[in-house]
Amino acid sequence: MIAILKHGTTAEQAKPLIAWLQNMNLDVHISEGQEVTILGLIGDTSRVDAELLSSLEIVESVKRVSEPFKQANRKFHPQDTVIEVGNAKIGGGHFAMIAGPCSVESEEQIIEVAEAVKAAGADILRGGAFKPRTSPYAFQGMKDKGIQLLLKAKQATGLPIVTEIMNIRALDLFADVDIIQVGARNMQNFDLLQELGKTNKPILLKRGLANTLQELLMSAEYIMSEGNENVILCERGIRTFETYTRNTLDLSAVSVIHDLSHLPVIVDPSHATGKAKLVPPMALAATAAGADGIMVEVHNNPACALCDGAQSLTPAQFSELNAKVSKLREAMV
Amino acid sequence: MIAILKHGTTAEQAKPLIAWLQNMNLDVHISEGQEVTILGLIGDTSRVDAELLSSLEIVESVKRVSEPFKQANRKFHPQDTVIEVGNAKIGGGHFAMIAGPCSVESEEQIIEVAEAVKAAGADILRGGAFKPRTSPYAFQGMKDKGIQLLLKAKQATGLPIVTEIMNIRALDLFADVDIIQVGARNMQNFDLLQELGKTNKPILLKRGLANTLQELLMSAEYIMSEGNENVILCERGIRTFETYTRNTLDLSAVSVIHDLSHLPVIVDPSHATGKAKLVPPMALAATAAGADGIMVEVHNNPACALCDGAQSLTPAQFSELNAKVSKLREAMV
Amino acid sequence: MIAILKHGTTAEQAKPLIAWLQNMNLDVHISEGQEVTILGLIGDTSRVDAELLSSLEIVESVKRVSEPFKQANRKFHPQDTVIEVGNAKIGGGHFAMIAGPCSVESEEQIIEVAEAVKAAGADILRGGAFKPRTSPYAFQGMKDKGIQLLLKAKQATGLPIVTEIMNIRALDLFADVDIIQVGARNMQNFDLLQELGKTNKPILLKRGLANTLQELLMSAEYIMSEGNENVILCERGIRTFETYTRNTLDLSAVSVIHDLSHLPVIVDPSHATGKAKLVPPMALAATAAGADGIMVEVHNNPACALCDGAQSLTPAQFSELNAKVSKLREAMV
Amino acid sequence: MIAILKHGTTAEQAKPLIAWLQNMNLDVHISEGQEVTILGLIGDTSRVDAELLSSLEIVESVKRVSEPFKQANRKFHPQDTVIEVGNAKIGGGHFAMIAGPCSVESEEQIIEVAEAVKAAGADILRGGAFKPRTSPYAFQGMKDKGIQLLLKAKQATGLPIVTEIMNIRALDLFADVDIIQVGARNMQNFDLLQELGKTNKPILLKRGLANTLQELLMSAEYIMSEGNENVILCERGIRTFETYTRNTLDLSAVSVIHDLSHLPVIVDPSHATGKAKLVPPMALAATAAGADGIMVEVHNNPACALCDGAQSLTPAQFSELNAKVSKLREAMV
Repeated sequence: MIAILKHGTTAEQAKPLIAWLQNMNLDVHISEGQEVTILGLIGDTSRVDAELLSSLEIVESVKRVSEPFKQANRKFHPQDTVIEVGNAKIGGGHFAMIAGPCSVESEEQIIEVAEAVKAAGADILRGGAFKPRTSPYAFQGMKDKGIQLLLKAKQATGLPIVTEIMNIRALDLFADVDIIQVGARNMQNFDLLQELGKTNKPILLKRGLANTLQELLMSAEYIMSEGNENVILCERGIRTFETYTRNTLDLSAVSVIHDLSHLPVIVDPSHATGKAKLVPPMALAATAAGADGIMVEVHNNPACALCDGAQSLTPAQFSELNAKVSKLREAMV
Repeated sequence: MIAILKHGTTAEQAKPLIAWLQNMNLDVHISEGQEVTILGLIGDTSRVDAELLSSLEIVESVKRVSEPFKQANRKFHPQDTVIEVGNAKIGGGHFAMIAGPCSVESEEQIIEVAEAVKAAGADILRGGAFKPRTSPYAFQGMKDKGIQLLLKAKQATGLPIVTEIMNIRALDLFADVDIIQVGARNMQNFDLLQELGKTNKPILLKRGLANTLQELLMSAEYIMSEGNENVILCERGIRTFETYTRNTLDLSAVSVIHDLSHLPVIVDPSHATGKAKLVPPMALAATAAGADGIMVEVHNNPACALCDGAQSLTPAQFSELNAKVSKLREAMV
Repeated sequence: MIAILKHGTTAEQAKPLIAWLQNMNLDVHISEGQEVTILGLIGDTSRVDAELLSSLEIVESVKRVSEPFKQANRKFHPQDTVIEVGNAKIGGGHFAMIAGPCSVESEEQIIEVAEAVKAAGADILRGGAFKPRTSPYAFQGMKDKGIQLLLKAKQATGLPIVTEIMNIRALDLFADVDIIQVGARNMQNFDLLQELGKTNKPILLKRGLANTLQELLMSAEYIMSEGNENVILCERGIRTFETYTRNTLDLSAVSVIHDLSHLPVIVDPSHATGKAKLVPPMALAATAAGADGIMVEVHNNPACALCDGAQSLTPAQFSELNAKVSKLREAMV
Repeated sequence: MIAILKHGTTAEQAKPLIAWLQNMNLDVHISEGQEVTILGLIGDTSRVDAELLSSLEIVESVKRVSEPFKQANRKFHPQDTVIEVGNAKIGGGHFAMIAGPCSVESEEQIIEVAEAVKAAGADILRGGAFKPRTSPYAFQGMKDKGIQLLLKAKQATGLPIVTEIMNIRALDLFADVDIIQVGARNMQNFDLLQELGKTNKPILLKRGLANTLQELLMSAEYIMSEGNENVILCERGIRTFETYTRNTLDLSAVSVIHDLSHLPVIVDPSHATGKAKLVPPMALAATAAGADGIMVEVHNNPACALCDGAQSLTPAQFSELNAKVSKLREAMV
């Protein structure tokens, strides 16, 4: 870590800062230039609060040379992490297609969709039991009952399942869930992350709507630093000024994360775009960008003709998409 | 609520949608135009999922005529809500100056700062015991011990206190805390909001970094719909492309919230700007914009000369700011 | 176009608005509901200022049913526009690879790069002669001399060329340029757009850093409404809070534009990401998303070892990328 | 300027970079640390392209110690710049109230508004003759005729006038205009800025919707480096995800610019918020933040009842606002 002191800072003024840094077991190499004085900090700088440091009166700026994340860092773990659940693998060249309905609504629905997406080539079943909703008056999911139905669908199809946790007190319900999802709104719910770090379940961590990639990796670090290294990252769109799509899908995130970290990264084009029509092209683009998996919403409700245009694909559309993704992946080898 | 159907939608296609809406106890008034068909939905539309509705194939767009929040809505509660804690009042013309250190660090520190800010005119003491930090390796606050020290400072000075909760399991520790703060990262931690709604404590709800004002009001609604109407909203800056300031303080939020809601709204210029130098002008601007209070960081640590330039004001700077704020408020009557 | 009047608006209050609308040769269909009054506006609403309309006291909101762009609109021109320059075609299933240096620096440089990218499979040569720079002290390009060198490279290789115009007064210099580029900062330089609309040159119009897709199409409309229908749109990243990449590449723009418009759309991953390492994955992702072309920076300067890490690819890297893009496109048929 | 080289960069690799820097007449001080090598660049670094430098393979990061703007920089010009037009002064403690209609529509209109705002205490008259519009089909202003009417209003009232230029070819029309405005969309129309730099007219430079404050100051530098030091900066809102207001007014810009530059800065709350109701509180907030002036839209069209709710104030509302602003400014002394 490098701290650049402001022009005109005297040795006297710098003393307390240097003492404070040395007190954190850091070696401080001082290099006085004509314009500025530069402090090179050697040691475990991951514990240094760069924001506090850079806000000090005498500090011009602070630059991390080593990233603040360690366990998620590819430098210290060059090989790709591969997550295995059931017959599915994610990362290290393995690709998983995750599909299922937005919400679990009934036993009939979830089993029907599970069978449909399995037939269409899905590797993992998704479905929401606990639903984070902007409004307290909106449907909040079937909760524990929803998880039980997901487990029935898992039993019926053999597909491993992924579903979202919103509150650590519900953890017991997730004993047979294969992958626990942390939603975008909880990406910096640090207490939840730490508790999940004490389990050995794979965690699917979604990027927050206004969070940088470094913050996403730091949230992964919260889980990993407690002992759970099974983290899958998920790009699902960020908030920008553009209103045509629900969010702006940031596909460069895939390459950047692969560069910085050994953790697998998947893409959710359904929530990112909010429009079924945009899901296939964005799923293909994510595949070409090198994603380790795609998570899409698929519904199967012939009785509910009105659902046809939502962000969910029909099983037929999903099947067609899956075939295209496979063809693309073959062409990329 | 108005749903505009796409050009060319047939009556047959619209039928399932209309049935679905009627099924939610809504009256559906159909008005067929040359270009489009418009459905006017009469009844309690707060339960209608506008996002789902607008994603349907046959729907061109959806427009709420009534806001989706009810208890926070000024239309149904024209009078300003006034929150009282100790001798302080917030809202309805009452203004509160909230001050204190970023983190509680020691008994000596918090009592010294508490006495200093009281002398300088503060109405409420702030101080962090549980600290949400981007990095798991950064100082996470003194936790329960920090709350005990805050309570000692309250006893010593008579100032009511506000401090942040990160996990509902810590709620018992907040029994004597006057105002419970929900941080920006937890603004959409809906389970936490609902649990706080079951208490009768005033809740200081901070706007999330990428949350709209409507989402902020919906989060207040989560608390209020559980029975707790003592909500104070707080603008603390949003994330934008500008990097000179830590966040971009959105002062129009003050007027907009006052227009839409009866709840008081305060401003935190310290976290918004991240620079001590910008705190006084932004505090004055917030006052002129009509804020019901200001929350600023004040430290008092002569032993720690290096803290001088952080986003915290010294007690002397705070005292000067407080005098200017008072003068401004008098000029605004 | 639909205008929803506020609850409680009287017929008397609405009268001047209705007269004003009728005065613009619009038929106004009034539909009075319990909650609101809705005005359906029939006729050429592209001339109605929706922003002004929605800011009126009595207006709740305004919703365009037909898009405000006409000539760029796929509804009125279902077939894809295909732009032809030399042997290259863009749009309607035709894909163009555009490559070349950021700036033209010398005859030797531009001819060497032109030959290298041609050998590697490029269809069109790019190179900057007029360079928009944030700082007045930075290199502003070789200007007219740069265009002459580009024309020499065109002659030497047979590749059509694209280069940026910053000022309409330089138009004469572009007589033999095949495609004139309008940069992101000039996307809403409406006078420039109108003047270019009076030429018959293909115009490569880049999306502005903070412009919506609708605004991009409206800027295309400025060119087309003057008579020049040869417009190619270019997504090159938008400004967001993320700082790891220079901009955030919005690949959903490709699908959205193809949906709304018949104009071809290409992607520039070099300027979007600012990092050579991210260019190939984003070029592949853009191809999979359905882009009609890719524009990448390629340099060829063995004497300048220091340029190796910039956002430009080497000819060898470009050649490898080109082969992958071709393979991907074959797999997508 | 500081360039930090990546860990593991050899002296051999660094050589061409160092030679390149020395070639720009910079002294390069090399300080080799354990983790990194740091190059301190001494001399006129305003000509160094920091973005290019930081994109090099061997460069970890680049940090400017001195800002890239010189003539706009307070360091080299500590005293506030004061702009004088007619009887009005802006900057250095002088405050100007600028008011007038969005567009000039007729002689009667502009003279009536001019007289009304003068009576209400305005110092300068604003009015649009050339109007940048998103749509080519929207009213583009009265153009040269509009400027002639503004000049009549100036003659009638004695108020100096400010109006926008969109194209340097129209410069002759602005001979008797007191302040030439450059709109947000043209903030980086560098050719226009340079041409205006060759005049001696005060230039009102509005911040672009997605431009940083440093970019705003660099655009001022474009004007100043050509010899025209009469630049007034204007904050008018930036684009964010929030849709309730048209833009997000960034009032911290006022303090930041005053800190970095000697140029005056004014605020336009009308365009920032897009709602008349929000104009007075934001004008007061801007005043409290230390702005050197406020620019608001005022209309006066009793025949056009429908305009009442737009972002424009009535003369009566403006008069009331002006009185409050004056009272606030007195309280701030």
